[in-house]
This record gives sequence, C-alpha cells and structure tokens, in this order.
Amino acid sequence: MQRTRFDTARIRAARQMIDPVFLDSPLYPCEALEPGLGCAVSVKLETANPVRSFKARGTEVVASLLVAGGPRAAVCASAGNLGQALAWSGRSRGLDITVVAPHVAPAAKLDRIRALGARLELVDGDIEAARERAVTVARDEGIRLVEDSLDIETCEGAATIGLELVDSSAGYDAVLVALGGGALATGVGHVMKALSPRVEVICVQPLGAPAMTHSWRQRRVTTTESTDTIADGVAGRHPIAAVLDDLLLVADDAVLVRETSIIMAMRMLVEHAGLVVEPSAALGIAAILEDRERFAGRHVVTIVCGSNVDPDAYHRWVTDLPS
Amino acid sequence: MQRTRFDTARIRAARQMIDPVFLDSPLYPCEALEPGLGCAVSVKLETANPVRSFKARGTEVVASLLVAGGPRAAVCASAGNLGQALAWSGRSRGLDITVVAPHVAPAAKLDRIRALGARLELVDGDIEAARERAVTVARDEGIRLVEDSLDIETCEGAATIGLELVDSSAGYDAVLVALGGGALATGVGHVMKALSPRVEVICVQPLGAPAMTHSWRQRRVTTTESTDTIADGVAGRHPIAAVLDDLLLVADDAVLVRETSIIMAMRMLVEHAGLVVEPSAALGIAAILEDRERFAGRHVVTIVCGSNVDPDAYHRWVTDLPS
Repeated sequence: MQRTRFDTARIRAARQMIDPVFLDSPLYPCEALEPGLGCAVSVKLETANPVRSFKARGTEVVASLLVAGGPRAAVCASAGNLGQALAWSGRSRGLDITVVAPHVAPAAKLDRIRALGARLELVDGDIEAARERAVTVARDEGIRLVEDSLDIETCEGAATIGLELVDSSAGYDAVLVALGGGALATGVGHVMKALSPRVEVICVQPLGAPAMTHSWRQRRVTTTESTDTIADGVAGRHPIAAVLDDLLLVADDAVLVRETSIIMAMRMLVEHAGLVVEPSAALGIAAILEDRERFAGRHVVTIVCGSNVDPDAYHRWVTDLPS
Repeated sequence: MQRTRFDTARIRAARQMIDPVFLDSPLYPCEALEPGLGCAVSVKLETANPVRSFKARGTEVVASLLVAGGPRAAVCASAGNLGQALAWSGRSRGLDITVVAPHVAPAAKLDRIRALGARLELVDGDIEAARERAVTVARDEGIRLVEDSLDIETCEGAATIGLELVDSSAGYDAVLVALGGGALATGVGHVMKALSPRVEVICVQPLGAPAMTHSWRQRRVTTTESTDTIADGVAGRHPIAAVLDDLLLVADDAVLVRETSIIMAMRMLVEHAGLVVEPSAALGIAAILEDRERFAGRHVVTIVCGSNVDPDAYHRWVTDLPS
C-alpha cells in the first residue's frame, strides 16, 4: 500500500513504552449478541483499565518520550478521555498536565481529570474551541502541546490495539472502529492493512458529527458548523489533513449511524454482554444494526473504546427510552 | 503451611489446559471507588470472557482431561455459571454436556446454557437438590459427574487466578474472595499462602447463605436449612468437608455481609467503575462497606467473578432501591 505516516516497527516500539495495565486487553466473542445482530461479534475491550478508555495507549507513549527528553509539562484539548489518560500518564511520571475541555463535557470525565491531579480549564464551545485554547496555553507557557490524532505518538499508541488484533488467532472478516479525530481508525487501520490486509476496516461515525466521514468520501477536508450527537468522544468538526490522508489509505469504508442506533447498541451491549459503554464505543454495533445484510453470517470485531459515561445520562439513554 | 489438596506445580500445569481467552484477565486499580470506600481497590476482572465468569478456568481443565481419556459426556449441577462454563468447554471439545439447575436460577444463565448446546434439566428446590439429581444422572447414564469445589480440577482452574495475582507487581495487602462452594477461595487462597503469604485472604459470603462461613468459624461442617440471598452463585447449604479442610488452612478470615451491602456494592461498581456484576461478584466491595475501618488506607484486590444477571433484576437492584 502507499505510505501512511506510520511505521510498523515504531508501533512495536511504542508498545514497550506503555504500562502493561493498558496492553493485551480482552478480545472475546459475545455470542449472546448474535441473535440480535445476525453475525458473530467479538469485542476488543478497551475499558477494563484505570482510565476506562483506549486513550492511555497513546498518552503513555507521549509521556514516556517527554520524560526521555522534553518539557516536563504538557497541555491537551480533550472531550474527556484523552485528558484523563494524559493526566494518568503524566502523574505516574511526575509531569505537570493541563487539560482544556468543553464545559459541556460529561461531568464523570471532568471529575476524573481533576482527581488525577491535572489542571483542568473549561471553555465555552466544543472540542474545536478547546483545541484553540490549548494552542494558546502551550505557546504562552512554553509547554508541550499534545494534539490528538495529529501527534503521531497518539496514533501509534492506538495502533498497538491493531497488533493485538493481528496476533489473535480469531479469524474475523471485518473490524469496526469508532471514527473521531482518526488516531484509532488510522492506527488500527494501518496495522490491519500492513499485516492482515484481508480484514475489512470499517470506520463508524455519528450522523450528527460526520466531518471526517464526509472528508473521507470527498477525499478532501470537509468541516461542519456544528455537531449534534451524544457521542461526545468523536464529535469533532475540523478533520486534520494529515490524518485524512492516512485514513484514505487504510479505511475500506466509513459509515454514519443514527443516534437511535447508538442508543440501541448501548442497550444491547449492557443487556446481552454486561458491558457499560459510552456512546462512542457503541458505534460499531450501531453500524451492524443499520446494515444487517452487509454483516450477515460474517465475524466482525468491534473495539469497545471507552466506558466513561455520566450515570444519569446513561440511565436515561439505556433504560428510559422506548425500545 | 500444612498440606492442602493443592499442588502449585499442578496449578501451573492446569494453566496450560485453559483456552487463553480465559487467562490473564484484567487487574487494575479503580481509583474512582476510593472516596466511597476509604481504601485503594484493584479489581481482578473475570467477566470479560465468553462465559462472563471465572468458572471456565475450571471447566477447561475438566474438559481437557476428559478429552485426554475419559467419558465423552459429563453432567454438573449448577446455579448457572458452572453450567454455562462446562457447556462452553464441552462444546469446543465435542463433549456431550448435561446441566442440572434449579428452576429458579436466573433466566439469563439458563438461556446461555441452552444456547451453548448443553442439555438443561431443571429441578425444584435449590442447588443442593440439583446436586443430588446430577449424581443420579451421572450414575444412570454412566457419564462423568463434575462436582464444583469437590473435584480438584475445578479448584485448580480457579487457582490460576491466584498465579496471576502473584505475578502482578501490584503490592496489595489483602484479597477479597467470594465464598460459595469454595473452589475460588481455596484455590486462590492456596496460591497466595504458598507464594505471597503476607497477603491476607478474606472470604466473603452473604449473611443469607452462611453455611461455609459458619463451618470455617466452627472448624467443622455446618449446614443450613435454607438460604435467603440474591447472590445465587454462592447460595449453597452443604459445605464439602475436604474443601472446608483446605479453607481452614488458607483463609485468614471469613466474613458475612448483608443484602443491602451487596446491592450498594453493585451500585458502586457500575456507577464508579462502569462494571455490571452479579451479586456474588460484589461481595468483596460489600465487605469493605461493612468494615471500612479494617481496610482504611490499605490496598485490597477483589475478584469480580461474574456478570451474569437478569437485566430486569439487575435494574431493580441497582436503580430502584433507595440509596
């Protein structure tokens, strides 16, 4: 394939920088989901770790390299999961971490960022406003700006999930990946295309936050004015050109799903698999629900990428709405 | 220490017989639980596998040995988790499995046993009635009777969890283990006492199903007439003498907890750790809730041993009752 920004050897090296508590996450079939979905589904569970999302794989790489030689402080913009992960990785290495987050981010995520000892700055607006503010903080304070998906370390960390998928003996046909900024999708996608090219890489984004999917389809960066989705973790509006370039090389498809499908998927995951997930982590199951024919009889693996939800909101989504 | 029925080398050998999908389960700190509990808590998560409980570690050993030379059919009595695990292990090896379960067992467990291709026989009464019936089935059909906790393979499989706890670098002070028939408690307890003797082994049982705890305290088998607990997985009445003998050698304490504490623990685990657990799996957290002083400032690990719950019952326990 054409060259992405990734180097598989560097991804293997990144793995060595990550605290083992985040590695070798469970990968297993959830047969109880089959009757409702019409296909065999395995989950790669990225929630059973201290920050309840896959993001620490990337921040562990970032923080390890900072310790090896760089500023002892860093700032990131985050809808919550990256900030929590960077706070965790920074704390364990004695780094000062600042997180800029939208004030509308889930309280559960913001509380954890504070509890992990990071300085938390809230901004009006959405993740794009937070990104702008983080740039200013980094410049004013002379500290490292960690930019999710743009910084290759964040992508290489996420890509280690791909190594684990390839190493497993499970013979699946497709991997369903949540698509936000693109670190997870391009990282896992690169590894699959490099090492298991027969596996279809399908990215899934909410209809209410479709910027990267539109960009992938049009093969050029396309922004949106706003977002409207409960999947706060993937609600960007300004795709990064370099990430899109990679996504064009490694994604076989990018699909959009409705909010009702995301909620139904969250409900199925808790009822039939006992898994509490945040909306972004239900995107893969939502994609199956919206196109059962495409997946009928196949074996797919979906990356359950986070479980940081506000209990009240989760309860409202999963138990209060009509089936 | 005095000799238990266990041999640590045999436990290491048992590990080789277990499908890797059940091994090396996540072990990680849940810091968000600390404020509510007053101590550091790590979870050993035995729910992120195809049968959503630790029981397959034991049935994998049983089924492997059957394939190596024995009848091609087996029967067990089960409140649900052992049956599901034996059905899984048997199916993957072409064995005919029969499960005898109380008809009051959670429907979610019974449905999974059937879905895994086992023959399911329901009996009136509780797990002890199911055990009697399983003995008859085994004798009449000339097939292997798998007796949880009595059969050393079931204990050796569970004991592999202990190996993983010992191998981790986390320096915890105590391990909290659900106590039912005793396979998990004696298996993990043996490994801890053999390899990490400074770690306190604390068994936890519901006040409503206290037979083994009473037996441990009185140092002789003590039965009860009935049980009254939502923790169906540990609701036995007739402790096995050989298992009690081991428990007397490896357990530092055995404590009883109230139903309200179990429910509160389930609620804390889902709200602060995003973990859906069945009542038996919340016993460790319940023990902390009932004796905060004992654990204050310490680092404990609790084995989250299963997540097979009926969604309706779970919802009722976790969301409907007053805090």
